[in-house]
Amino acid sequence: MSEEVSLSLDEVRRLSIDVLEAGGLSPDHAKAIAAVVYAGQRDECHSHGVYRLLGCVRSVKEGKVNPNAVPDVVDHAAAVVRVNAHYGFSPLAFERGRPLLIEKARKLGLAAMAINNCYHFSALWPEVEAIAAEGLVALAMTPSHSWVAPAGGTKPVFGTNPIAFAWPRPDGPPFVFDFATSAIARGEIELHRRAGKSIPTGWAIDSEGNPTTDPTAAMAGAMLTFGGHKGSALSAMIELMAGPLIGDMTSAESMAFDEGVGAAPCHGELILAFDPKVFLGADAAQHVARAETMFDAIVGQGARLPSQRRYEARERSERQGVRIPKVLYDDLKALLPR
Amino acid sequence: MSEEVSLSLDEVRRLSIDVLEAGGLSPDHAKAIAAVVYAGQRDECHSHGVYRLLGCVRSVKEGKVNPNAVPDVVDHAAAVVRVNAHYGFSPLAFERGRPLLIEKARKLGLAAMAINNCYHFSALWPEVEAIAAEGLVALAMTPSHSWVAPAGGTKPVFGTNPIAFAWPRPDGPPFVFDFATSAIARGEIELHRRAGKSIPTGWAIDSEGNPTTDPTAAMAGAMLTFGGHKGSALSAMIELMAGPLIGDMTSAESMAFDEGVGAAPCHGELILAFDPKVFLGADAAQHVARAETMFDAIVGQGARLPSQRRYEARERSERQGVRIPKVLYDDLKALLPR
Repeated sequence: MSEEVSLSLDEVRRLSIDVLEAGGLSPDHAKAIAAVVYAGQRDECHSHGVYRLLGCVRSVKEGKVNPNAVPDVVDHAAAVVRVNAHYGFSPLAFERGRPLLIEKARKLGLAAMAINNCYHFSALWPEVEAIAAEGLVALAMTPSHSWVAPAGGTKPVFGTNPIAFAWPRPDGPPFVFDFATSAIARGEIELHRRAGKSIPTGWAIDSEGNPTTDPTAAMAGAMLTFGGHKGSALSAMIELMAGPLIGDMTSAESMAFDEGVGAAPCHGELILAFDPKVFLGADAAQHVARAETMFDAIVGQGARLPSQRRYEARERSERQGVRIPKVLYDDLKALLPR
Repeated sequence: MSEEVSLSLDEVRRLSIDVLEAGGLSPDHAKAIAAVVYAGQRDECHSHGVYRLLGCVRSVKEGKVNPNAVPDVVDHAAAVVRVNAHYGFSPLAFERGRPLLIEKARKLGLAAMAINNCYHFSALWPEVEAIAAEGLVALAMTPSHSWVAPAGGTKPVFGTNPIAFAWPRPDGPPFVFDFATSAIARGEIELHRRAGKSIPTGWAIDSEGNPTTDPTAAMAGAMLTFGGHKGSALSAMIELMAGPLIGDMTSAESMAFDEGVGAAPCHGELILAFDPKVFLGADAAQHVARAETMFDAIVGQGARLPSQRRYEARERSERQGVRIPKVLYDDLKALLPR
């Protein structure tokens, strides 16, 4: 087993802020990014934990991301908040726009936030969870880079296009899911390639459009969506809603914009918030209880709710801190000033 | 080949209205239901065509559905329309609420319509298409009856829970999808059972929770969602959004409410509408053109857009009318007054 380093959650946050500030991110960006990296590490989503700091700092060095961008929050329409991230990372833009999104949803019943011109490297669940923490239902989606072929096609059009949803629960953390509409994360194919392993069928096709189990052929060809033509339709919806509808790039456009640098995707994000209190008025508690009955029916038969594993990890981390590979820790330490 | 009858589209509409009125539906309900049955037959969605009239009339006879219900449209909140269908069929409720939904979306940027206490037998695509015809983006979802097990489970919790989406296109019909989040329609399993055929793995499990290819065991067990845990998460979202969020029944509650009659599911429906003109202002045409570039990239590689087959059928039907089995035609004629 490879060597590991134990860190308290406070140390995770401190280390993240220090690495980001040393990497040139403004204190506001460093704090906002550290918060999502912290959440990822705490919940044992390792690919979205402190590991991501390396890519963040690299993206800044490559000159694509503006490390000092100040997001502009615009009260665009009665039910629409727009945030121009000015080619900075997304977490600060989300944080800055969130209060107005929530205010609008509480007033109107529902509202949308469009984040434009942002670089995205983080998962969507911290965002929908933050909205659910205010008692609202949240739905978020974003395109990425065009690596995924449409159903029946052979060439990439869609991104891995994640969609995330949160439903607040009266006792304990919300019901949350966050999944890519590709069959698998792109990183998984890369991991198989490095390990010299073949990939399962259904993940990808080669550049001729034939099913492949060869990760190198898959990387040169196209990934597939999950769930066949249904997943493909959903992925198209995400392209449209979090692209043209909000005046931002599709995954193909974002990929072209990247010019082969391989930075985090630059694009838009759409977040919807719904206030059950407005929908339901005095009956809200009664209907929320009916949702709990459904959750009980799922958990009661031994199935898991989508975020259950993550919440178990969270409890563990809050009790005993986290462990990260020493190699990663040393790589991060090397980014700090001497 | 079994005998068929040719009908013009006008004859389809006339026959539908006559059968429904003879079955006791009010003229307003008959007209609204006939419009969606007409659309289904025209687009060669045979299971949602005139065949559905038989089930409609049966549901009224069984005494579950109110054939004279007058839907109440309530301006519930700034961005929320509620329609109480008063236990009538859904199409009239949708029609009555739609103008206010569209008005709100145009004013605010987006809006929601919650239809409550309605009996649903129709597809969702005619509804999202009707909203897209006004230049708006639409998303609709509804639970059904609890026939579908959650991922990792063995007992039914979810309905077949369809979700539909429409994106208006400048030239020609909108981009539309409408799919069940179950692996397959329940009717498909029943068709296999009647034909004495086995079903593919991945459609259902038996009452012990084991994969089955036996349609009878599947009907007694549980259907599966499409796309594994991702489809299951999406199905849960539909339960929550078009159930408790709008103060209506989950699929399990709707099934219990049915008391074994086997009528169309009684429940709620959530429809969201987004106005690209509000989101995009003067830049709307430019961004809509970017969506077209994406559609071109899909169609240009020989893949199909979700509703392409349906639109081809529509053109055909508008040119030459439709053909229905004579047996079905005779069954419908038998419902008319002598």
